[in-house]
Amino acid sequence: MCSPKVMHHVHQQLQSGTSRFDRRALFRTSAGAAATAGALAFGSRSAFAQSATPAATPIAGGSGVTIAASTVVDLTHTITPDFPVWPGNESFQIENLSTVANGGFYTNKISLYEHTATHLDAPAHFVEGGLTAELLPVENFVAPIVVIDISARAADDPDTGVTPDDIIAWEATYGPLPAGAFVAMYSGWEARVSDPDTFINLDADGVQHYPGFTPDAALFLVEERDIVGIGVDTLSQDPGNSTDFGAHIAFLSAGCYGIEGMAGLGELPAIGATVIVGGPKHEAASGGPARVLALY
Amino acid sequence: MCSPKVMHHVHQQLQSGTSRFDRRALFRTSAGAAATAGALAFGSRSAFAQSATPAATPIAGGSGVTIAASTVVDLTHTITPDFPVWPGNESFQIENLSTVANGGFYTNKISLYEHTATHLDAPAHFVEGGLTAELLPVENFVAPIVVIDISARAADDPDTGVTPDDIIAWEATYGPLPAGAFVAMYSGWEARVSDPDTFINLDADGVQHYPGFTPDAALFLVEERDIVGIGVDTLSQDPGNSTDFGAHIAFLSAGCYGIEGMAGLGELPAIGATVIVGGPKHEAASGGPARVLALY
Repeated sequence: MCSPKVMHHVHQQLQSGTSRFDRRALFRTSAGAAATAGALAFGSRSAFAQSATPAATPIAGGSGVTIAASTVVDLTHTITPDFPVWPGNESFQIENLSTVANGGFYTNKISLYEHTATHLDAPAHFVEGGLTAELLPVENFVAPIVVIDISARAADDPDTGVTPDDIIAWEATYGPLPAGAFVAMYSGWEARVSDPDTFINLDADGVQHYPGFTPDAALFLVEERDIVGIGVDTLSQDPGNSTDFGAHIAFLSAGCYGIEGMAGLGELPAIGATVIVGGPKHEAASGGPARVLALY
Repeated sequence: MCSPKVMHHVHQQLQSGTSRFDRRALFRTSAGAAATAGALAFGSRSAFAQSATPAATPIAGGSGVTIAASTVVDLTHTITPDFPVWPGNESFQIENLSTVANGGFYTNKISLYEHTATHLDAPAHFVEGGLTAELLPVENFVAPIVVIDISARAADDPDTGVTPDDIIAWEATYGPLPAGAFVAMYSGWEARVSDPDTFINLDADGVQHYPGFTPDAALFLVEERDIVGIGVDTLSQDPGNSTDFGAHIAFLSAGCYGIEGMAGLGELPAIGATVIVGGPKHEAASGGPARVLALY
């Protein structure tokens, strides 16, 4: 599901002498391929070109899906002004405009940074010329979700991350990752969301500490497996103490999307559920709040 | 799926001597029942009570669903600063915060009125004490979607609306409305979204003209059928020239939700698709942007 062309370029770049997570090098290799997909530059307008011509899109190349479900799980946290955000970001804001008693109906204005609460990262978030969120293929928003549970390890080591060995061990138990998978890390961090201090978990030097995908695992997934996106129950795809954003760069350069700040992953089976990603659809979106549901 | 208790009260009220769409009377009858479901008053905080304890919820009372799909249709318009809004409302705003070239990653701040573009109306939008959007049961976000096509009539008469007879005629062709249905009006208005003037269609007196559900059809659906929500491809559940908001009041008083400004309804079969509603999940939401997909 990730772009083979992009991945080939990324792979070549990584095999050459450049620093493994040299962000500029990766951006250069991915920008051309992503741009051909029609990404909007910020500030340009498509005059509702997407709006007026919604397309019926085959799922998974037309082979289709069958979802037999008796349960729906909400993988989305409630956004509030108190929701923990990336250090330095503004919190979610809501301003009441009218009420039923005073105006006849109840409405609000909301303002937020795109990367707030349970939200989507589009390729354009880290990749110059990458797809913005509203242009992501909708067929990639319906996917088999697998959950890699590292919560036991994370309870002792907030700096841990999903490794290639974790993925291989998961497959030894549950079988090969399904094609077009959405791969979620469950670290147990979702339970900390009511306490921003422990969710962000800053040390005395202002460094964040929580789990994420290691860059090696991200490269393994986009190069060796067939995925459409990934999710974490923490504030970032990368571990909080990352300095190179290697997981972001690997996933987003490959055209995959990420969902950060997921809820409810502890309710899901390791395999067998289908995720439905209600991603943001404003023009030129680097990302934005997503309503994410799972059926199983 | 709508609350039988609320509907019984609404029905009693309508049968008594009160004006048929006396908003205050309807609000009184619905407020009590809705409040027992734990609706948040604006400004109150739940300290992430919902966030920390997402529930796995049975679909359709536990009987389950099977979705066999080969196609996904995006029923969502792209939100832009030019998207037509209710007269007097502010447009969607986006402010760039950083770019890949200048800051290492691309992000924006967005600000919008909740009822912008393809969006959800929660019961609380018109019903004092009604459920706010983030508290709507997620099992109602996965539903069989039926499309009632009045586009031929609407092409000649923008003030037309879905009537009980339209619903009965639809059933004569396609069979009874499925239980827990999402009922969408397709008027053809979605094609006008690129031209705000014809989408809102104001006359010289400032009155809007576009189709919606008639109040009679809304009452018929919530009293005589089993629905979870409704959708329109126009700016409002009610026809644009409505003065009593009878459809809003009937649907929302019954605990149903509405999706306004839908896209892509012309791509769907009249019956046989499943809608997945990615509704907004900010606290105390009267509604908000929704990513709506259909599978068939």
